[in-house]
Amino acid sequence: MIKEISDKNIQEFSNKVIDAIQCTIGFGEKNLHEPTFCGNEWTYVKDCIDSSFVALGKYTGEFERKVSSFTKSKHAIAIVNGTSALHLSLVLAGVRAGDEVIMPTLTFVSTANAISYIGAKPHFVDSEICSLGIDADKLRSYLKKISVIQNGNCINKITGNKIKAIVPMHVFGHPSNLTELLNISEMFNLVMVEDSAEALGSFFDERHVGTFGKLGVLSFNGNKTITTGGGGIILTDDDNLAEAAFHLSKTAKIKHDYEFIHDQIGFNYRMPNLNAALGCAQMEQLPTILHAKRLLYKKYQKEFNKIENVALLKEPLGCKSNYWLQTIVLDEVYSKYRDQIIKNLHHAGVMVRPIWTPINLLAPYKKCPASDLSVSENIFPRIINVPSNAILT
Amino acid sequence: MIKEISDKNIQEFSNKVIDAIQCTIGFGEKNLHEPTFCGNEWTYVKDCIDSSFVALGKYTGEFERKVSSFTKSKHAIAIVNGTSALHLSLVLAGVRAGDEVIMPTLTFVSTANAISYIGAKPHFVDSEICSLGIDADKLRSYLKKISVIQNGNCINKITGNKIKAIVPMHVFGHPSNLTELLNISEMFNLVMVEDSAEALGSFFDERHVGTFGKLGVLSFNGNKTITTGGGGIILTDDDNLAEAAFHLSKTAKIKHDYEFIHDQIGFNYRMPNLNAALGCAQMEQLPTILHAKRLLYKKYQKEFNKIENVALLKEPLGCKSNYWLQTIVLDEVYSKYRDQIIKNLHHAGVMVRPIWTPINLLAPYKKCPASDLSVSENIFPRIINVPSNAILT
Repeated sequence: MIKEISDKNIQEFSNKVIDAIQCTIGFGEKNLHEPTFCGNEWTYVKDCIDSSFVALGKYTGEFERKVSSFTKSKHAIAIVNGTSALHLSLVLAGVRAGDEVIMPTLTFVSTANAISYIGAKPHFVDSEICSLGIDADKLRSYLKKISVIQNGNCINKITGNKIKAIVPMHVFGHPSNLTELLNISEMFNLVMVEDSAEALGSFFDERHVGTFGKLGVLSFNGNKTITTGGGGIILTDDDNLAEAAFHLSKTAKIKHDYEFIHDQIGFNYRMPNLNAALGCAQMEQLPTILHAKRLLYKKYQKEFNKIENVALLKEPLGCKSNYWLQTIVLDEVYSKYRDQIIKNLHHAGVMVRPIWTPINLLAPYKKCPASDLSVSENIFPRIINVPSNAILT
Repeated sequence: MIKEISDKNIQEFSNKVIDAIQCTIGFGEKNLHEPTFCGNEWTYVKDCIDSSFVALGKYTGEFERKVSSFTKSKHAIAIVNGTSALHLSLVLAGVRAGDEVIMPTLTFVSTANAISYIGAKPHFVDSEICSLGIDADKLRSYLKKISVIQNGNCINKITGNKIKAIVPMHVFGHPSNLTELLNISEMFNLVMVEDSAEALGSFFDERHVGTFGKLGVLSFNGNKTITTGGGGIILTDDDNLAEAAFHLSKTAKIKHDYEFIHDQIGFNYRMPNLNAALGCAQMEQLPTILHAKRLLYKKYQKEFNKIENVALLKEPLGCKSNYWLQTIVLDEVYSKYRDQIIKNLHHAGVMVRPIWTPINLLAPYKKCPASDLSVSENIFPRIINVPSNAILT
């Protein structure tokens, strides 16, 4: 039984959090996250417009090479946004209508939406507190209980559907437990597609996330570590999948001097050159931005160490997080006062937000299969993101 | 029986076409279509980057207002590209998996793809030579024969499926016969969604195309009359559909100060601010560009009038075409020599392309229902687009 806390106590606690944030980032209204443009953004975008090649052009390929080089993924295919990149990756992973796909309930809704576009069903599993990603141990036990391998396919004994893939999501840039999740994907014959939308610049065991699964996805939306306005990328080491991703993202048109032959149902998913031009400049700034975000974490840590009942989320052991969004975790005593605390912070001009509502609680996904989700339920009212801009000084 | 024509004759004919094109647009390599940037393109894009709001921001709404004002559509919802705009429009039109959607076989493949994304089936119908759009008379007779109205739904008696919608496509900017197609859509209870991807600036009976159907779609891809790099827009006069389009294009997130509640399976389809900034500048140039494209048509007309066995495609009676792509129609005697003629033109540095392969002939769509398509089959090897840049002098 969690004891009641007075309004006065909550205001005092909120004030301490506000102080910690303002001591770190200064006074005045701050957004949760803004892009940092301090390199060749103008130069490349103007060059792109001057060339008139704003749709197809040299920057899209150049952007892919830069991301490929940074992540050490053999291939990188630039896509119009992260959701579309995930949708196409799932198509390439062989997910089909009626299949189930394992994913954490604690993620942004696009993970589930991308699965739904195929007519497949998300199957929600629980998370662990240290990474906020899928709890591997719990997932292993769960799959042992509910699934059976038949003809090489993992079958959900309860629904009768094939469980085709697993989509770990690296929450706020913190890597999930990839070694264990890879083991599980092999044990149960699931294709792993990493939703690394938030995790450009995050490493697990010195290897960039998004490169452990058969396919991985990054996002360059306006709120991400670097941005292309809207944009995403597919990472893969598999030559055939890379070729297929490229082909399908460009309406599956066969290369020909003049004829229009499309051999599959393709997509209009290629990242425009205009957006990629911005991305090329942003990739050049990435190391500086990541450094600044790590410094910000250290500054916040110093301040939040002084406050009881709240902890700043730290990168998991053996991992390097991009610290995309700085995250505080409230002690359980404050769980049910999250909204009040958020309102107090907003009132003081400090822009914060809670973690997403677990997807299994959203109307369109209430009836999807799910494991026990008690940890997600416990932690979702305790997590608040605080202003996380890279401060370049 | 069409008589054989000698290589020499084909080369001579090709030379006449080359002469006509070069007399009109000058010598030197010319692309089929390039963007025209001569206004505030860089000013607005720079302002957008300087504001740091490259994803969400003021330009997307401003772009919508400009398109709404120009087309006199009550609402315009800016979307990441034309294919996604059509996909979302079909969702909003109530098309569901298993339904059939009437569309011309002579169109770009995205029309069929957008239908397929829902799990619905394209149902191909024939076109008329004057507009290259759906032949309304032929469609009416066909629907009378194959369909029956049951409980207000149009049912295909052969497949048993519901025929839910009709998607006319305004080929190369030439308006289809909208009065008749509207009549048919009412008679057979089909929702009309106009694929006006190529037709910004085209009018039927002094009303902008894309505003006759329940929903209409424009594209701003790099090859279109004006461009946003990648981009599309949904037009509708229906307040509820407009609100739903906006909502669904932004992941169906309920407006809330901090909470993440999504009430439907939404999409990441909003046009980024960066692309819309370019679009705002382009919309300001649109009247000038349309004027230049009409002048180009007149210049071409003068030249092609001198050549036998070929005609320049003219806007249908009562319509105003944007003349997006200038189009020549070969007489039947040259049907089977199209490829040779195209190669001759390419060899002379004149970039031309044929009309698309009819979609019913593409592998992924071969098994879809279709009416008699004899006119499409007859005209597809006779149509060639010639360089169509707006020449601003």
